[in-house]
Amino acid sequence: MTRLAGQHLLGMRGLDRDTIYRILDTATGFRDISRRTIKKVPTLRGRVVLTIFYEPSTRTRMSFELAAKRLSADTAAIQVAGSAAQKGETLLDTAQNLDAMQLDAVVIRHGASGAPHFLAERIKARVINAGDGQHEHPTQALLDLYTMREHFGRLEGLEVSIVGDLLHSRVARSNLIGLATVGAKVRVFAPRTLLPPGLAETYGCTVCTTLDEALEGARVLMTLRLQKERMTSGLLPSLREYAREYGINAERLAKIRPDGVLMHPGPVNRGVELSPEVMDGPRSVILAQVENGVAVRMAVLYLILGGGEEAAS
Amino acid sequence: MTRLAGQHLLGMRGLDRDTIYRILDTATGFRDISRRTIKKVPTLRGRVVLTIFYEPSTRTRMSFELAAKRLSADTAAIQVAGSAAQKGETLLDTAQNLDAMQLDAVVIRHGASGAPHFLAERIKARVINAGDGQHEHPTQALLDLYTMREHFGRLEGLEVSIVGDLLHSRVARSNLIGLATVGAKVRVFAPRTLLPPGLAETYGCTVCTTLDEALEGARVLMTLRLQKERMTSGLLPSLREYAREYGINAERLAKIRPDGVLMHPGPVNRGVELSPEVMDGPRSVILAQVENGVAVRMAVLYLILGGGEEAAS
Amino acid sequence: MTRLAGQHLLGMRGLDRDTIYRILDTATGFRDISRRTIKKVPTLRGRVVLTIFYEPSTRTRMSFELAAKRLSADTAAIQVAGSAAQKGETLLDTAQNLDAMQLDAVVIRHGASGAPHFLAERIKARVINAGDGQHEHPTQALLDLYTMREHFGRLEGLEVSIVGDLLHSRVARSNLIGLATVGAKVRVFAPRTLLPPGLAETYGCTVCTTLDEALEGARVLMTLRLQKERMTSGLLPSLREYAREYGINAERLAKIRPDGVLMHPGPVNRGVELSPEVMDGPRSVILAQVENGVAVRMAVLYLILGGGEEAAS
Repeated sequence: MTRLAGQHLLGMRGLDRDTIYRILDTATGFRDISRRTIKKVPTLRGRVVLTIFYEPSTRTRMSFELAAKRLSADTAAIQVAGSAAQKGETLLDTAQNLDAMQLDAVVIRHGASGAPHFLAERIKARVINAGDGQHEHPTQALLDLYTMREHFGRLEGLEVSIVGDLLHSRVARSNLIGLATVGAKVRVFAPRTLLPPGLAETYGCTVCTTLDEALEGARVLMTLRLQKERMTSGLLPSLREYAREYGINAERLAKIRPDGVLMHPGPVNRGVELSPEVMDGPRSVILAQVENGVAVRMAVLYLILGGGEEAAS
Repeated sequence: MTRLAGQHLLGMRGLDRDTIYRILDTATGFRDISRRTIKKVPTLRGRVVLTIFYEPSTRTRMSFELAAKRLSADTAAIQVAGSAAQKGETLLDTAQNLDAMQLDAVVIRHGASGAPHFLAERIKARVINAGDGQHEHPTQALLDLYTMREHFGRLEGLEVSIVGDLLHSRVARSNLIGLATVGAKVRVFAPRTLLPPGLAETYGCTVCTTLDEALEGARVLMTLRLQKERMTSGLLPSLREYAREYGINAERLAKIRPDGVLMHPGPVNRGVELSPEVMDGPRSVILAQVENGVAVRMAVLYLILGGGEEAAS
Repeated sequence: MTRLAGQHLLGMRGLDRDTIYRILDTATGFRDISRRTIKKVPTLRGRVVLTIFYEPSTRTRMSFELAAKRLSADTAAIQVAGSAAQKGETLLDTAQNLDAMQLDAVVIRHGASGAPHFLAERIKARVINAGDGQHEHPTQALLDLYTMREHFGRLEGLEVSIVGDLLHSRVARSNLIGLATVGAKVRVFAPRTLLPPGLAETYGCTVCTTLDEALEGARVLMTLRLQKERMTSGLLPSLREYAREYGINAERLAKIRPDGVLMHPGPVNRGVELSPEVMDGPRSVILAQVENGVAVRMAVLYLILGGGEEAAS
């Protein structure tokens, strides 16, 4: 098992199966804490968790902040508009300076792939990747795995279909790595212009040529957020056309297994990736994903900051 | 008496007289806590209070945040610039997602009347309206009532005059409802273009046709903030003309009762609604309103989140 | 010794030698706390420290926030974009309103020299100047003195050279006052257009006419941040020319004493005031300055908010 105490969490790559299960198991206990009236344990009292987001985000930043607070850590937040970045300071200078103030963990989201890895080699605090460019978003994959396991009791052999903009999605990439590690049976489908080459070879998944092929028999239908910004790049037809060709509506959702569930990392473009009826329908586990996200991030902070050191040995 | 534990606070409408007094009584104890060196009680430890403001505000947001912290709740804040709203997420989606993270109370300010009510029907957390469009701002009315009662020892029969832009003011509306409930004797005056129809019928107040008529004999002169944005709508003459015709200066303030006080919900446009001399003068209780605001919001959070559940039965 | 409990910290002017040493001594204990796993003491539990920054800043704001949190104070932050300042409220009105909410300390950065002094006379909370215009930045000077004393064991007679834009630097001004008080031996050098008149007379320092004159034999080389905004004022040649004429590189750094150290208040314009090799080199104590900043600010908050009252008598 990979030792987590004292490590960074930069991506799903490098996490072995036992380590993934250990995070999920730890998260189970923490999710119960979040459901109590007093949602707080003293585990990380006196630790400091800094979130530094170079891209706007509400839910991911809040999820990490609440996770840290529920463990009694102090939190501090930097959003880059209005920060020293305006004075032309580099990411490294900013991080090294903050690091000198004795932080325990730095949760970073950055538009450049590899930014968290770059920092991890140069600062003392533990680095947690909250999304870097088109590279990885490991806590999203972990909360997705948690949600799947909670629903179906297992991950090995689970029929998961990932549908949408696979080319630009760090969520898809982290999930493909994690699902391969735990032995899920993964199919993917993307519009031709949004499909990167080599997925089958790299992740051992099946690349479908039609949406229906991906839907049929899926137990988990994981849809991806469409970055509207991609429109300008000529990779996409209009949103309306995308919704018509690839959006998941009731008719399409009916093609997955009767006990299958619908996932989306959010925020959803209502009426584009998903029709409102399926998004708010009984098979959507989107809000469960959000709830589980706090628990999984509590587990990651707890294990990385040494809370589980003894248990790990 | 309305049961507060587990309820939302969406407006003054629906709060009966006993419930209003119960909030004011509870606030009294909390105001004393804020004056101590150690301004903190453990009452709401492990609860999470989220403020989400779709309109800029310093004082109201800070007042709620400090209220929550003094009760030992954890706080989280979202200001909409730089949030997921930028990604085109709807208010409901944002709120439902945050709600899934297990919040206890959501304090919302929104430009659309009714936004808090809309949310209250759709999320698990308790919703507190911190101002919605031109509709209500109940905690402002409660702190105003607190301030009046503190000063005069009673609310029933108290001669209160509300002066200014009654058409657009959610503060006025919440106060009119609350003052009617507690049986105050209310007069109102507004420039003709800023006077909504039907006030006398709806709230049982007297509509004055001149400013002097409203001033004479008032014990509480409540002035309203003038939204400079209204200028563009053609409803207002110039600010200078407004100040000359309707602004409260020393001469006009002298017309209220000798023991009368001057109120304003802030922020004041110095030299428009109020001349600097009266704003900073001995009869102004504007800063007392601000101090009382924290105490009243502590009381609201405490009662709603169940702190006073036993006492209520 | 100046009594600190209950006082404001508006500048280095007025702090006598014993008071400066008392702050530095107090900071020593606090720096050790920041290096522990549990970086927190209950000293200021239930106190409220507000940071209000009218100029963007990451490190100074974070340093104060972390200092307050490590003492268990509650913190609240206002950054002026998005605040009531947008509604045309004056600094005084904003501060008086926040003050009415019962704050203990207000940490303010403002573009106008004297803004903290103006507030200090008008609000109840203790005011700490985090930088006002081109006037003072006392906690920066205190952390610089701490760093020098830590390194050399003494301040009296220490050979300190301050180099850069002396005309606009509040950091330089606060250091000049503090260094004079503790009896350091100070030299200064600035490009002609960035040198204010009368420094020698006011601060008892030596004004050098060449950079080399300032470098030779210095034990501490304190470089100043160049405000790129000054470019537009015609006071500066191009940045490239500034770097060539006055920037500190390895060759120039070799001219200070063999045991000398390099300081900079940050953020550094890499390649302008400092070449990357010296900035990241073994003689740079820039990150030690940052670490010490938190400890010094803990000491200031602790002493001002009365934590050290008995000890002071």
